[in-house]
Amino acid sequence: MLLNLLLTFTLLMGRVKSDPDPLQDYCVSPCHSSHQQIFLNGVLCKDPTEATVSDFTTSALSRPGNTQTKPLMTNVTVTTTANLPGLNTMGLTMARLDFGGSGVVPPHVHPRASEVTVCLDGVLLVGFVDTSGRVFTQELHPGETFVFPKGLIHFLYNIDTVSSALAVSGLNSQNPGTQIVSLSSFIPKPPFLQEVLKSAFDINGQDVARIRKSLQR
Amino acid sequence: MLLNLLLTFTLLMGRVKSDPDPLQDYCVSPCHSSHQQIFLNGVLCKDPTEATVSDFTTSALSRPGNTQTKPLMTNVTVTTTANLPGLNTMGLTMARLDFGGSGVVPPHVHPRASEVTVCLDGVLLVGFVDTSGRVFTQELHPGETFVFPKGLIHFLYNIDTVSSALAVSGLNSQNPGTQIVSLSSFIPKPPFLQEVLKSAFDINGQDVARIRKSLQR
Amino acid sequence: MLLNLLLTFTLLMGRVKSDPDPLQDYCVSPCHSSHQQIFLNGVLCKDPTEATVSDFTTSALSRPGNTQTKPLMTNVTVTTTANLPGLNTMGLTMARLDFGGSGVVPPHVHPRASEVTVCLDGVLLVGFVDTSGRVFTQELHPGETFVFPKGLIHFLYNIDTVSSALAVSGLNSQNPGTQIVSLSSFIPKPPFLQEVLKSAFDINGQDVARIRKSLQR
Amino acid sequence: MLLNLLLTFTLLMGRVKSDPDPLQDYCVSPCHSSHQQIFLNGVLCKDPTEATVSDFTTSALSRPGNTQTKPLMTNVTVTTTANLPGLNTMGLTMARLDFGGSGVVPPHVHPRASEVTVCLDGVLLVGFVDTSGRVFTQELHPGETFVFPKGLIHFLYNIDTVSSALAVSGLNSQNPGTQIVSLSSFIPKPPFLQEVLKSAFDINGQDVARIRKSLQR
Amino acid sequence: MLLNLLLTFTLLMGRVKSDPDPLQDYCVSPCHSSHQQIFLNGVLCKDPTEATVSDFTTSALSRPGNTQTKPLMTNVTVTTTANLPGLNTMGLTMARLDFGGSGVVPPHVHPRASEVTVCLDGVLLVGFVDTSGRVFTQELHPGETFVFPKGLIHFLYNIDTVSSALAVSGLNSQNPGTQIVSLSSFIPKPPFLQEVLKSAFDINGQDVARIRKSLQR
Amino acid sequence: MLLNLLLTFTLLMGRVKSDPDPLQDYCVSPCHSSHQQIFLNGVLCKDPTEATVSDFTTSALSRPGNTQTKPLMTNVTVTTTANLPGLNTMGLTMARLDFGGSGVVPPHVHPRASEVTVCLDGVLLVGFVDTSGRVFTQELHPGETFVFPKGLIHFLYNIDTVSSALAVSGLNSQNPGTQIVSLSSFIPKPPFLQEVLKSAFDINGQDVARIRKSLQR
Repeated sequence: MLLNLLLTFTLLMGRVKSDPDPLQDYCVSPCHSSHQQIFLNGVLCKDPTEATVSDFTTSALSRPGNTQTKPLMTNVTVTTTANLPGLNTMGLTMARLDFGGSGVVPPHVHPRASEVTVCLDGVLLVGFVDTSGRVFTQELHPGETFVFPKGLIHFLYNIDTVSSALAVSGLNSQNPGTQIVSLSSFIPKPPFLQEVLKSAFDINGQDVARIRKSLQR
Repeated sequence: MLLNLLLTFTLLMGRVKSDPDPLQDYCVSPCHSSHQQIFLNGVLCKDPTEATVSDFTTSALSRPGNTQTKPLMTNVTVTTTANLPGLNTMGLTMARLDFGGSGVVPPHVHPRASEVTVCLDGVLLVGFVDTSGRVFTQELHPGETFVFPKGLIHFLYNIDTVSSALAVSGLNSQNPGTQIVSLSSFIPKPPFLQEVLKSAFDINGQDVARIRKSLQR
Repeated sequence: MLLNLLLTFTLLMGRVKSDPDPLQDYCVSPCHSSHQQIFLNGVLCKDPTEATVSDFTTSALSRPGNTQTKPLMTNVTVTTTANLPGLNTMGLTMARLDFGGSGVVPPHVHPRASEVTVCLDGVLLVGFVDTSGRVFTQELHPGETFVFPKGLIHFLYNIDTVSSALAVSGLNSQNPGTQIVSLSSFIPKPPFLQEVLKSAFDINGQDVARIRKSLQR
Repeated sequence: MLLNLLLTFTLLMGRVKSDPDPLQDYCVSPCHSSHQQIFLNGVLCKDPTEATVSDFTTSALSRPGNTQTKPLMTNVTVTTTANLPGLNTMGLTMARLDFGGSGVVPPHVHPRASEVTVCLDGVLLVGFVDTSGRVFTQELHPGETFVFPKGLIHFLYNIDTVSSALAVSGLNSQNPGTQIVSLSSFIPKPPFLQEVLKSAFDINGQDVARIRKSLQR
Repeated sequence: MLLNLLLTFTLLMGRVKSDPDPLQDYCVSPCHSSHQQIFLNGVLCKDPTEATVSDFTTSALSRPGNTQTKPLMTNVTVTTTANLPGLNTMGLTMARLDFGGSGVVPPHVHPRASEVTVCLDGVLLVGFVDTSGRVFTQELHPGETFVFPKGLIHFLYNIDTVSSALAVSGLNSQNPGTQIVSLSSFIPKPPFLQEVLKSAFDINGQDVARIRKSLQR
Repeated sequence: MLLNLLLTFTLLMGRVKSDPDPLQDYCVSPCHSSHQQIFLNGVLCKDPTEATVSDFTTSALSRPGNTQTKPLMTNVTVTTTANLPGLNTMGLTMARLDFGGSGVVPPHVHPRASEVTVCLDGVLLVGFVDTSGRVFTQELHPGETFVFPKGLIHFLYNIDTVSSALAVSGLNSQNPGTQIVSLSSFIPKPPFLQEVLKSAFDINGQDVARIRKSLQR
């Protein structure tokens, strides 16, 4: 079931790329490029004289995400160079996080960004762990803001079991990337060697198989 | 009158500094440093073992800004390393923009950041001008998002003459900096030579004096 | 009349792009590329084996700029990846500034560069304003040098009403970009909403119309 | 038991910091600084005139790591600004990886570095998972080399159950940082809320408690 | 004779390019590109969905370099985006250095990288000179490690006249580049003006001719 | 004799440091700091409220350098954070190059900068060699401009045996650093092992001794 979430992140994040300084005023990514078979570290621009105001605006974040059909009762929507072409080279992503009751964005890392989250509605428990194993965790009420340092494992959790919650995040990359540690560990394709997971989590082969099966549902 | 706005930006922006990658997990800026007389390109950290969760959270953005006492009927509140010490080295600022009726954030530049704005309430007219003089301008309704490319002159305007409006922005620097072009041109301290303004705006000395007087009120 | 100046800057600046570290010895921009319809953040290189010494040299700065036909009696000529293809990826621009009597480079920003100016002939009054509104201004005699910090509004003015003056500048980007604040505010295309300018400069609609008309001449 | 490994990484990684370009020839970190209470993003230098050749050399990697007393039968030793002060600002770490029979470096991320590993002795199974969930995995024989892209979850495993193995890695940061996903998820201090782990791994509270207990041994 | 060495470095280094942060998970360089006539600052990627595990591994460093046929009795083999396509955008190179008896890697600079060398076998004398002319030099025994700061002139020398020696280096660029100062000074193509070398080394024209002739053998 | 030149470069370059983006408006380096015993990667700032306009201006380049007392008949004067404190963090250096008859700036590298040179007076022969050994060389007449790519060996030579020449350069670092390859190879302190130079230049021990003696005069 959690596989859906992984796939959602993939669709949102998988084709966008990012983040040195802009080297000209803007570098709007092309929607239908005759050069779409050309790949580089980042994305191509379209002819700057063909940029239009619609390249710099999006309504992608205006619709509430559907949390009820998601296994973890959360929906994350982000700006990308696909839905907001003018974002290309701007070094920034905005995200909308919708939480159903007890919804959770499970422990994950963004390999290429720091994140600052503003709670807009509801009460969230959020936290991160640093490389020494120390945890910083906090309840966020509407208007309250939290910093997740770059590349560190963090989570967000709606502590209300019924009411929904809403937050908006800024991330300092146009393509932060996301790895949810449970999914990346247990159900990547193809799977990691079972011995590796047994050692890492100090569990037996049956445990590994059971967790894999659950997460794949 | 506009001088107030300039001073507000100064207080918010003037002491914070910014933006390479973090070189360790975090570098929390110290509140009361015994080394506060030491200045560098950025800010010092406090001892990492003394970091606490309160360093990573702030309620600075939770209160509506008072727009009624401001000359342009707008109030901008931003996270800084002063109100959110854990932001230091994270390369990101979040801002809350409150607009009264017809409130405007006048044409300005951020010398060190791109900006993505999400309209949360009301209807905003926003726009920027590129270095060739071309303007991109758009109406934003709630949930709609706009990109202001790094270092370019841009503005935001509440097109409703009565109702308030609200937006949140992410900027990809912990210290974007702000220069409002009208205030920086006409009422810096000490003022620019009158001849320079007369040539730049193709106005006469009386015009310069009049605009200066109005803006200083 | 000032529109000329804007267009001159556009022609010089509009198609060049810039500034990470070089990732190979050099990346000479191609003059007539069969791939000229490909755009990216920066410019393509030509085949390095086809680089010639003429790619690394230019006489663009060797001719005095004609200041007499310019509305502000100044002419700025810069190296670009068009007139000096080997400049591509080198992170640097050199500029020649010719001033007629009372010539002025009006308040402007370079969104992507710091600038250091050396006065070669005549006496210039130069200055910049920081984000707190504080001005630093100085007379430069031949051989004297001044720093304009990155992204801040600055100007240069020939204080002699008759004699010409000459300066050379280095800027730390191959495409610094330029926004002259009077022109970008009053005569961008299409123009900003009049309400925005009235609020920003605290002037009335007639003032806005008059300034626009003058600057467009 | 795995806690040892976490602590080992902490000791090695916890106090070093990293990675813009050097801004002078070298910036040797001081061993016993009178300014050790000063913290910044990176580390202070000692007076460059006091740099000695011993600052640029270390024997930290010359001794085989003891793998037999480690829960996962692996020992990782890295250069740091503590054991190799001249490394400061050089943007690089070298690591020695010793593996006992079936030794494993469990799935982990380096928040601040890419890694290239050269197998020197034995046969290693290595792999990483990308942000779309796709796994790349390979057997490495002596002399063979593998790339782990920046910030992605990866592991190394000695496929021989008896013989030891040896590898050397380069990482492009002087302080890559390490988060072992099983340890950071299950036994950070203080622990994450149980609900978060139950959701993330789709396991029950007893499972969480059991895994925590095992990993802490 | 030394020309061989120069050419070897050229072949290894000449076509690879490098080093901002990765802007996506990976950017594997294409082996046979239909776009190989497109050049940019760095290298193109192949379609990420066509990346395979073989792109991330190489056996280039597994074979001892032949030192006996080399004029200076040394052989340097490096990973490049040609022999290890997944290295592209990862900001890192690994090198294998084989030394015959009295083998030397003569004074040289890497314009784009710092280097950390680990001696694996034999005894090396290594050193660098800083921009003030101060030398840091050290003997390295197996397991001992040395830092060569970015861009500074350095050398490595096998002090044993008979036995071979072996080292591995990490460099923090995917394309460090190499200029051997003796070869770049005396036998570049076309040669520098003789007057320049006479002044630089304070030698006469016959000396210049003799050194050129020797180095070209 | 050439030692003088080396020492001149050292005095000019040795204590200045450099070059990320400015993280605030400016970071003026302090002249007499109570914290001068604190060293970091770059330089400290003074209290920004104490910055004065004299920090942003210098007459260091206004005086012709004395070329007649220099062994190579050239004098290079550069802006530094010592003579132009406001230059700190601005990523740029300006240099004045005075040449006597047949004056030469011998083959050298700047480890941390690209350079663009404008000839102001006289005729210069300039050139650089790339990492493949290919030379690009050109005569520069007044107003003509040449690019020296980052980190590559280059030279400048006054082809007139009697008349002086003058040039100005921009370099994209506040501390480019300089290594003159003849001096760094033959007369660093302490000297390199003779064997290394014999192999590198394919000369005998007497040659080495003779060149060392000449250059030290």
